[in-house]
Amino acid sequence: MADKESDLGLTVKKDQDFSEWYHQLLAKADVLDQRYPLQGFPAYGRFGFPAHDRIIKILEDLLDASGHEKCYFPLLVPESLMSKEKQHIRGFEKEVFWVTHGGLEKLNERLAIRPTSEMPMYETIRNWIRSYNDLPLKIYQSCTVYRYETKHTRPLLRGREILWNEAHTSHATREEAAAQIVEGVRIYKELFRRICIPSLFLNVLDVFAGAEEAIEPYGIYPDGRGLEIGSVNNLGQRFAKALDVKFKKEDGTDDYAYQTCYGISMRLLATVISVHGDDHGMVLPPEIAPVQAVIVPIVFKGKEKEVLDACQKVEKQLRDAGVRVRLDDSANTAGYKFNHWELRGVPVRIEIGPRDLEKSSFTLVKRTGGKKSAKLADVVKEVTKAFGEIFSEMSVKAEAYQKARIRDAATITAIKEFLDTGFARIAWCGKLECAQKLEKNVEAGLLGHEYEAPVPHGKKCIICDSAAKHYGYVGRTY
Amino acid sequence: MADKESDLGLTVKKDQDFSEWYHQLLAKADVLDQRYPLQGFPAYGRFGFPAHDRIIKILEDLLDASGHEKCYFPLLVPESLMSKEKQHIRGFEKEVFWVTHGGLEKLNERLAIRPTSEMPMYETIRNWIRSYNDLPLKIYQSCTVYRYETKHTRPLLRGREILWNEAHTSHATREEAAAQIVEGVRIYKELFRRICIPSLFLNVLDVFAGAEEAIEPYGIYPDGRGLEIGSVNNLGQRFAKALDVKFKKEDGTDDYAYQTCYGISMRLLATVISVHGDDHGMVLPPEIAPVQAVIVPIVFKGKEKEVLDACQKVEKQLRDAGVRVRLDDSANTAGYKFNHWELRGVPVRIEIGPRDLEKSSFTLVKRTGGKKSAKLADVVKEVTKAFGEIFSEMSVKAEAYQKARIRDAATITAIKEFLDTGFARIAWCGKLECAQKLEKNVEAGLLGHEYEAPVPHGKKCIICDSAAKHYGYVGRTY
Repeated sequence: MADKESDLGLTVKKDQDFSEWYHQLLAKADVLDQRYPLQGFPAYGRFGFPAHDRIIKILEDLLDASGHEKCYFPLLVPESLMSKEKQHIRGFEKEVFWVTHGGLEKLNERLAIRPTSEMPMYETIRNWIRSYNDLPLKIYQSCTVYRYETKHTRPLLRGREILWNEAHTSHATREEAAAQIVEGVRIYKELFRRICIPSLFLNVLDVFAGAEEAIEPYGIYPDGRGLEIGSVNNLGQRFAKALDVKFKKEDGTDDYAYQTCYGISMRLLATVISVHGDDHGMVLPPEIAPVQAVIVPIVFKGKEKEVLDACQKVEKQLRDAGVRVRLDDSANTAGYKFNHWELRGVPVRIEIGPRDLEKSSFTLVKRTGGKKSAKLADVVKEVTKAFGEIFSEMSVKAEAYQKARIRDAATITAIKEFLDTGFARIAWCGKLECAQKLEKNVEAGLLGHEYEAPVPHGKKCIICDSAAKHYGYVGRTY
Repeated sequence: MADKESDLGLTVKKDQDFSEWYHQLLAKADVLDQRYPLQGFPAYGRFGFPAHDRIIKILEDLLDASGHEKCYFPLLVPESLMSKEKQHIRGFEKEVFWVTHGGLEKLNERLAIRPTSEMPMYETIRNWIRSYNDLPLKIYQSCTVYRYETKHTRPLLRGREILWNEAHTSHATREEAAAQIVEGVRIYKELFRRICIPSLFLNVLDVFAGAEEAIEPYGIYPDGRGLEIGSVNNLGQRFAKALDVKFKKEDGTDDYAYQTCYGISMRLLATVISVHGDDHGMVLPPEIAPVQAVIVPIVFKGKEKEVLDACQKVEKQLRDAGVRVRLDDSANTAGYKFNHWELRGVPVRIEIGPRDLEKSSFTLVKRTGGKKSAKLADVVKEVTKAFGEIFSEMSVKAEAYQKARIRDAATITAIKEFLDTGFARIAWCGKLECAQKLEKNVEAGLLGHEYEAPVPHGKKCIICDSAAKHYGYVGRTY
C-alpha cells in the first residue's frame, strides 16, 4: 500500500468505470487491502479503519444520548441456541461459519460464529428483564459479524466479516416498540446528515429473518445500483417467545417483550467514498477524516530551516487545538505530496513557502476545491472555518447527488431507462403481486415504499391501475 | 441482573473470601453475566463493558499521540498461514478454535479463530513495507481474540473470549525495536496511572510464543495471587523471517524488519475492581466510570415537585458540562438507591432534599468516603473537584495496596510466609536453574526480575549464593 507505484494515483475516472475506480481507490488510498488470503476478509488500513471507527463513534454518542447502553455479547453461539427461532436459523443456515474443534479436541456441540447477535443477546437479557420496571431496555454493541457469503463479495459492500453496530431494544407494549422504530430512524438520519450521505428510507418487502417489519436506508451508487446500508427492524414478540423474554406487567400478569433492532455497517463508509470521491481520490468529511489537515512545506534552497520551523509551529498550534494534523516533511516533491494526501481524502492542505512567510501568511487548499491565502496568526480559526465550509459543501453535494439519481417514472419504458443511473419512483398500489409482476418486466427489484412519504393521492398503480397507496422504489442492487 | 434480589448487595466481605466476593460483585454490579451457555464466554453488562471500553479509549489516545495508527485485521486465519511460524503454532495449537464449515459446505482448509493477531497482521503488512522509508510502522487494533482454555476459567481474568488491544511495530534496526519496547512500557505505565492501578513490570522467564524477550506488568490480587495483566514483547526478526517481512535498506541491501508487539486486556478492569472494590461494591476512577454521578432525590410529602425540579436542573447542568450523570427518580427508597449505585461504583452521589433546598445547597457523597454540603450554584465545580479528589485518593490507595503486597525475603521460609498475601522479592543471580530449584521448593513461580530496577549490589543469590544480578519476584499465579 505504501509503495511508490500506488501513489501515481488513479488510472481510471469515476464516471468512466465506477467499479474499477472504486477498487483502485480503496487499495491506493490505504482504505483496505484485499491481498489477505481469504475471500471476503480484507484488512482495514490506516485511512479506512479510522474513518469507519469515527462513523461508529458518532453513532455511539447518539445512542448514548438517547438512553442506549453499551454492552458486549459472545461471538460464538451453540447450535442448540442458534436454532431456537426457526425462521431465523432458516434465514442464516447457508451463511453461518461453524466451529467444530477446540485445540486438538472435537467439541460436543457445533458453535456458530454470530451472523447477527439476536440469539446471544436475547438469551442473556431474558435474565435482565423481570418486570415492567426493567423496560425499556435499550442496549447496543459495536462488533463484527460473519457470513459465509455465496454472492460475489465487494469490499465494504459485501464481505464475510462485517464491521457494524447493532442496537437492540425491548419494550412493554407494541406501541412503545413502534415508537422506538421511529427513534431508530431518527438516529440514523442524524448520523447520515453528520457524515454527508443522502438518506432514503424504505419500508422494504424483503425483511430480516425473523422480523415483522423492516425499514432500510438505501445507498445509490454512481453506477445506478443500490444497496441497503442499514436496517431498522420491528421484531414483534417472535424472538421473545422463542427465547422466553418475559416480564411481569403492572397488573401482575406476564407478557413477552416487544423487541426492535437496528444496525449499520461499514457500508456507510463505502457510501461516503462513492458519493464524494473524485478522480483524484477520496473526499472525506472533516469529522471522520483520519487526518484532517496536512502541512506541506514549499522548500527553496537556503530557506529550508525557516520554512520547516514555521510548519512545525503551525503543526503544534493545530494539534493543541485538537486538529488531527500531519506535517509531511518527507523527501518527496511537493507535487507528489499533494497527490498523496488528496488520494487519501485529507480535507485541508496547508502550504507554507518563503513567499508565504514574507507576508506572514500560509496557503489553504480545500479538498472540495478553493484556495486562499490567510494570516499565519489566524491558522486555527481559518482551518476550523474551512472544515465548516467543507461540511456544508459536501452536504449540498450529497443532496444534489441523490436528486439526480431518483426519477419519477410513469411507464415501464421510463423505469428501464432510469435504471442505469439510479432508482425509479413509481405510484404503486402496495400489493405484492404487482411488485412481482413488475420485477419480471424490468429485471430489477421493487424494493419497497418510501418511509413516512405522503400518499400519492389521485394517482394509479402503474401495474394494475388501481388507486396508488405508496411511492414504490425500483432499482437494481448489488 | 436487574432483579431486586441482586440489589440486596454483597453477602460476603472482600477480606474474608476474595474469590466469592469477586464473583458476587461482577454479577450483582452488572459487570458481566456468566449465565451464557458456553464456558468462558460471559456477556459484558452495562457497568462492565463501558468501563473496559473507556480503559481502551485512554490507551488508544496514548497510542495515537505516539504515532500509532488504528487498523483492523481479519478474525479468521487459514491453517497454512497459522502454521508459518513453528514456535508460534506450537504455543497455540492446543488453544485454537477451528472453523471447518461455511453454511452447509465443508471448507477446503481449516480456519483458526485468531488467538492473537501476528499472523494475519504480518501477512498483510509485509505488503505495506517496501523500504526503510516505510519504517517504523506502528499500528494497533482493539478487538477480541479466542483461546480454548483448558485451565480453570475466571471472569475477566481467564476466559475464552478475550477483549483486548494489541499494538504491533516494525523497525529498521534492532536498536529502534529496543527503544520501542521502552516506549511500550512507558505508555502502559501512563495508562495504569490514569486508571489508578499499581504497576509492577517484570522481565519474565515465560515469554510469549515466538518472542525473544517479554516484559509483563503483573497484577497482585487480594488473595496474594498474581497474574500478568499485559505484555510487551521484543519479537526480533523471527516472525519477519517466517512471513517474509523484508525491506530495502538505505544502502540498497535487503533486511528483515525488527518487530515488537504489546497488548493489554480486560484484566485491567479486573485489577481496578480487585484493588479498589470494597464490601459495598465497586469503586471506579471517574474517568472510566460508566455513570460518574447519580442524583438521588430525598423526597418528603408535599415537597416532591420542588425537590424533583431541583434534581432535574442539576442533572441538566452536569450533563451540559459533560458529566455522565443519572437521576434516579425511581419509586425505590433512598437507602435502596444508595446501595444500588454504590454497588456499581458510581464515584459521586448527590442528594437533594427539602432541607438542602432551604439553604440552596446539596449534599455530595464520595464513593471513596466523605460527605459535604455545598451550594447548588457551585454544583459543576464541586463535582469536578470531587472527581479530582477521588482520583488522588485512589492513586494513593493503589500505591499502599502494592507496597503491602511485595515484601523482601531473604530465606525460603520467608518467601513461603509471604505468598499468602502477595509476592516475595529476592536477590537472584539471574540463572534459570536457580529459578527452577526455587520453584520446586516454594511451590510458586519465580516470575522474572523487575524491569529497570537497580542491580542489588553486594547481595547474594538466595539460592546459589553467587553475586545477585536482579531482584527476582516470586509469587503464586492463577
